[in-house]
Amino acid sequence: MNRTIASLQGIYVPNIAPYDAQGRLDADLLRRMVEWLIDKGVSGLYSNGSLGEFIRLSYDERKRVTQIIAEQAAGRVPILAGAAESNMEMTLSMCRHCADFGCRAVSLTGPYYYKLSQESIEEYFRQIAVASPIDIVIYNIPMFASEISVPVLTRMALDCPRIIGTKDSSKDLCRFMHVNHAIKDQRPDFANLVGWEELLVPSLLMGGDGGTLSTAGVAPEVIMQLYHTARSGDWERAIQMQYRILDVFQAMLSAPNFPEGFRSGYSIRGFNVGPARFPNSRKEKECLAEVQGKIACLLAEFGFPEAAQACQRANDGTFPSQELERIVDEVAAQFFNRH
Amino acid sequence: MNRTIASLQGIYVPNIAPYDAQGRLDADLLRRMVEWLIDKGVSGLYSNGSLGEFIRLSYDERKRVTQIIAEQAAGRVPILAGAAESNMEMTLSMCRHCADFGCRAVSLTGPYYYKLSQESIEEYFRQIAVASPIDIVIYNIPMFASEISVPVLTRMALDCPRIIGTKDSSKDLCRFMHVNHAIKDQRPDFANLVGWEELLVPSLLMGGDGGTLSTAGVAPEVIMQLYHTARSGDWERAIQMQYRILDVFQAMLSAPNFPEGFRSGYSIRGFNVGPARFPNSRKEKECLAEVQGKIACLLAEFGFPEAAQACQRANDGTFPSQELERIVDEVAAQFFNRH
Amino acid sequence: MNRTIASLQGIYVPNIAPYDAQGRLDADLLRRMVEWLIDKGVSGLYSNGSLGEFIRLSYDERKRVTQIIAEQAAGRVPILAGAAESNMEMTLSMCRHCADFGCRAVSLTGPYYYKLSQESIEEYFRQIAVASPIDIVIYNIPMFASEISVPVLTRMALDCPRIIGTKDSSKDLCRFMHVNHAIKDQRPDFANLVGWEELLVPSLLMGGDGGTLSTAGVAPEVIMQLYHTARSGDWERAIQMQYRILDVFQAMLSAPNFPEGFRSGYSIRGFNVGPARFPNSRKEKECLAEVQGKIACLLAEFGFPEAAQACQRANDGTFPSQELERIVDEVAAQFFNRH
Amino acid sequence: MNRTIASLQGIYVPNIAPYDAQGRLDADLLRRMVEWLIDKGVSGLYSNGSLGEFIRLSYDERKRVTQIIAEQAAGRVPILAGAAESNMEMTLSMCRHCADFGCRAVSLTGPYYYKLSQESIEEYFRQIAVASPIDIVIYNIPMFASEISVPVLTRMALDCPRIIGTKDSSKDLCRFMHVNHAIKDQRPDFANLVGWEELLVPSLLMGGDGGTLSTAGVAPEVIMQLYHTARSGDWERAIQMQYRILDVFQAMLSAPNFPEGFRSGYSIRGFNVGPARFPNSRKEKECLAEVQGKIACLLAEFGFPEAAQACQRANDGTFPSQELERIVDEVAAQFFNRH
Repeated sequence: MNRTIASLQGIYVPNIAPYDAQGRLDADLLRRMVEWLIDKGVSGLYSNGSLGEFIRLSYDERKRVTQIIAEQAAGRVPILAGAAESNMEMTLSMCRHCADFGCRAVSLTGPYYYKLSQESIEEYFRQIAVASPIDIVIYNIPMFASEISVPVLTRMALDCPRIIGTKDSSKDLCRFMHVNHAIKDQRPDFANLVGWEELLVPSLLMGGDGGTLSTAGVAPEVIMQLYHTARSGDWERAIQMQYRILDVFQAMLSAPNFPEGFRSGYSIRGFNVGPARFPNSRKEKECLAEVQGKIACLLAEFGFPEAAQACQRANDGTFPSQELERIVDEVAAQFFNRH
Repeated sequence: MNRTIASLQGIYVPNIAPYDAQGRLDADLLRRMVEWLIDKGVSGLYSNGSLGEFIRLSYDERKRVTQIIAEQAAGRVPILAGAAESNMEMTLSMCRHCADFGCRAVSLTGPYYYKLSQESIEEYFRQIAVASPIDIVIYNIPMFASEISVPVLTRMALDCPRIIGTKDSSKDLCRFMHVNHAIKDQRPDFANLVGWEELLVPSLLMGGDGGTLSTAGVAPEVIMQLYHTARSGDWERAIQMQYRILDVFQAMLSAPNFPEGFRSGYSIRGFNVGPARFPNSRKEKECLAEVQGKIACLLAEFGFPEAAQACQRANDGTFPSQELERIVDEVAAQFFNRH
Repeated sequence: MNRTIASLQGIYVPNIAPYDAQGRLDADLLRRMVEWLIDKGVSGLYSNGSLGEFIRLSYDERKRVTQIIAEQAAGRVPILAGAAESNMEMTLSMCRHCADFGCRAVSLTGPYYYKLSQESIEEYFRQIAVASPIDIVIYNIPMFASEISVPVLTRMALDCPRIIGTKDSSKDLCRFMHVNHAIKDQRPDFANLVGWEELLVPSLLMGGDGGTLSTAGVAPEVIMQLYHTARSGDWERAIQMQYRILDVFQAMLSAPNFPEGFRSGYSIRGFNVGPARFPNSRKEKECLAEVQGKIACLLAEFGFPEAAQACQRANDGTFPSQELERIVDEVAAQFFNRH
Repeated sequence: MNRTIASLQGIYVPNIAPYDAQGRLDADLLRRMVEWLIDKGVSGLYSNGSLGEFIRLSYDERKRVTQIIAEQAAGRVPILAGAAESNMEMTLSMCRHCADFGCRAVSLTGPYYYKLSQESIEEYFRQIAVASPIDIVIYNIPMFASEISVPVLTRMALDCPRIIGTKDSSKDLCRFMHVNHAIKDQRPDFANLVGWEELLVPSLLMGGDGGTLSTAGVAPEVIMQLYHTARSGDWERAIQMQYRILDVFQAMLSAPNFPEGFRSGYSIRGFNVGPARFPNSRKEKECLAEVQGKIACLLAEFGFPEAAQACQRANDGTFPSQELERIVDEVAAQFFNRH
């Protein structure tokens, strides 16, 4: 079951969007991240995913992100490029842009904002598949964009040569299995990638081809080792490793204001990712600072020295006296409000 | 209860996006629609709402839509301009654009795609409210974008002078009443507009200030009469009229691929609105053609001659023989598949 | 619009289930409540609704509740009796029981637990409607039980003489209007009752026939006055009264562990309703105690002397020193855990 | 990872409720099914689950189902007995009943109908765990009853000796892994059973202890072989077998009116399960008849002779001429309606 012949294989690492102090895209830092990830041995890179805040970038910024990543990678690893735009003309224009810079394929989410019928979604992707100059991966992420049903995906996979795979962030292993079951026999090169790190080992066991995983950018050493261990068939060890990443993934995921938790992870690994593009409240900033210490300590368990230092710093911090005062004030206020 | 002193009052009519045969924005037709609506006596115009497919337009197209509507109206009626963009800088830039063209206020949906905490949403709007050069209406449409909770809306209404009202398309009269209850006593000029035509009369009865209603562009004569009847306190007649618009609204709403049903309505009223920007399947096109006849007949009941003619044409159509053949073929196929 | 000829009209007050110190149904107290409510002039009584915890009573207890209420009322007001059981045989048996005790009609929720198709639900109710010896009200409460769609309800209303009305707790005025719109012209005696007090006035305005409202048992004087005011056509005053009940309804509704907030309301009115049948955590009990003070003060605004006294007692309470200690302990624990 | 020391292990087969022609529980047939399943080598039996329509049985019928199964099994295999009732007293009474008949443990769903806080749910189960005379399995089935969160389950597992395991039908492998991750290190005997057959192999791989699977009653030979294959560590073969059961499970699951599809499966295996307790519409009955043929053919692929015969009979059926007539009639009616 491990001898995949899928078009895309392995771990494609999504970028986060690094900003400078003025909130502009930090191209130099993005290039350094690309170098660092290639150096760590990742299978490929994935631009403009949900982690990369593609929706919060301008059209031109999205174009630049893919260009920077593709140029910096310079063919050393394949690039999967997010190209979802809010209408077909712009999506096709972005597809051409990605093709021009040598990307391996584009990734397209279902349309967002409106609620659309599965029929419309199918028609939309089919028209794109006919016109696109580059291979397409269908990106199912129902928590943010229109779901693409398994029957629709199956029909398109069997009819459209341009549609070479899918990436699934629905956190639903049953769906993942149904996709394999419906498509792989008839189209063995169709790539079935998982977009939820908790399911990496189960999905590989059930015949998956890899994943695009947010944690893979924060701890590429760990995720790549996990992937290769599973691929080698050492399931017992792979499962142990799979369980070890649950806590750090959950800590980054449940931090206030996704993807700030993952951006914190990058920051712990030594990248100055800059301010959040979407604003956080004061309370969320405090919470994020606290969670960052926790993330650091969890990452330190994997033996990253810079994470160990960040964990140490977080633990050295004394209990912030101003917070204690704030709590006492609130208790007092509550008391006097009632009298 | 009818003596509203809200900043915004009456019916603000949202535009649909008209396209030419090549799918480009049809500026001339948009201008003609503005003239037609002002001629019908609408209270104001509303650009780039969900009906107007703002999300499917490019940034530049959105700018043009507001510019065209504002220039054409030329101060005869106030303009409420949709200015929601996917990050704060672009949203503020759009606010300045709307201010430059003399709009009365902008309307901002909650952020879409990501799921955000109410704290982040509040922080986001507060920062915009501080920086915006133009008054703001908070547009709650939870079926498409992040909901804005009543406590968040209330706090902002009481703290931020720039936030002068809300538009609610949640279809939830209880929420509407809670907004009134929490805000109006302390800020009587706060405008509470409904975005669901079925609730126009109930919301006016409960102290609302008007609405932005899709049907108001298809049947402005009817909606304006309904509004004025309710405002005059003739509830018995207003209720009868309210019930009369349910069927045509539901027919346009439930047609395949919103907002195509409403665009069909405009087409029946004599505007050649052009092809759909988002593709429809063959089956959806057939369904839409059928629904269009139904919409025409419902509109005809209000006495619009062009609708009566369209209704007549639809009824004259003979049963399409090719569809009969298709069904017979399918029945036969089903039969032989089993044998 | 106020001249309803519906089979059921007015306010049917649902019971709460009173328990003695051992947690058994308190029949005497239930009888006293019936007397009190009839004395306050309610239109009818409603046994075994969601407020009455019908699902948490045994089959025999449910039978007793209806029997007690019907016997005590003794024909002075009509009884609507909840008769939903988890299979058809038991439901029909309960219908016969309610008929035997002279109830006016039974109320049946959609089936719960399983998710059922609208077709099955329709078939279920049609078979009951044929066999039932008593008139039926279809009770739509989608937050707890299977929704009954408007088309299904409409078909049944037009076909089944035994189905004489509906009660809707979906909080959706649009649905309420669609039911009126689809059924009343063809079957004017069909009763459309609202089950959400915030919508009482809007629903009456739009042609409704009354309601079954939890608040009506806690403040029957207020709800009956509100109902009669609206029925008299004095909408301006009715609306003012409608807004006045929002806060107390929300306070009772959002108290921990529905229907404990409403049971607290009865307790403030002087009924010793006994312990909760479903257990509350220690924290929920503390919260409930606090909310009870708030409910008392809101009820006091309507001029109920016993509520004013309860409000006074709540305000006299000094800030509980043990809670202050608990908070300080928690702050300290948090502090030392980090060091 | 395969050396589980959990209190419960293997496949516990849930019963369906067989009825006689009058719709009464068919005790004899239930006994025969128990014999058949024990003969097929199942690990244990599970009474009164969702498959067994526990909610549609009377309290006395539920008691009888457990009694019949326990008496007939007579200690040859352990019994897990559904004991969820709608209040605590009745639940504890049912627990005592199950203990009296020698069941190994009871299974309790979260409370249904009302929406409850996690705090209340925790308090409810803790009080039961203190008072119950028999071990408890917490049954999470969020599609039908209140979800039990992982933190609540974890706290109870670590505090309450009576709570010895969980059964999860949420179809969510991530949740399953989080339960293992949070509990097993500290309480290795805690049983983590899966309630969704598509996840059997993945859950066993990730350290699960078995399952309660509807398909296990229809095809016990297949499910037991699948279980033993996975337990033996032959993952490659287990995965192939896992994929082979997807289609038949989906066919039974998606048949009209759960659990009728599974009852059809039993019927194909030679058990005359009797009429449905919850009524089906005529259209649903037709659909069920058609699906039954499909289920038979899928079961025939596993080599069951009786299924092969049922499949043959279904295929021999000529296209029902009356359905052809019905379609032609409908086409004609549609045609004439428009003219």
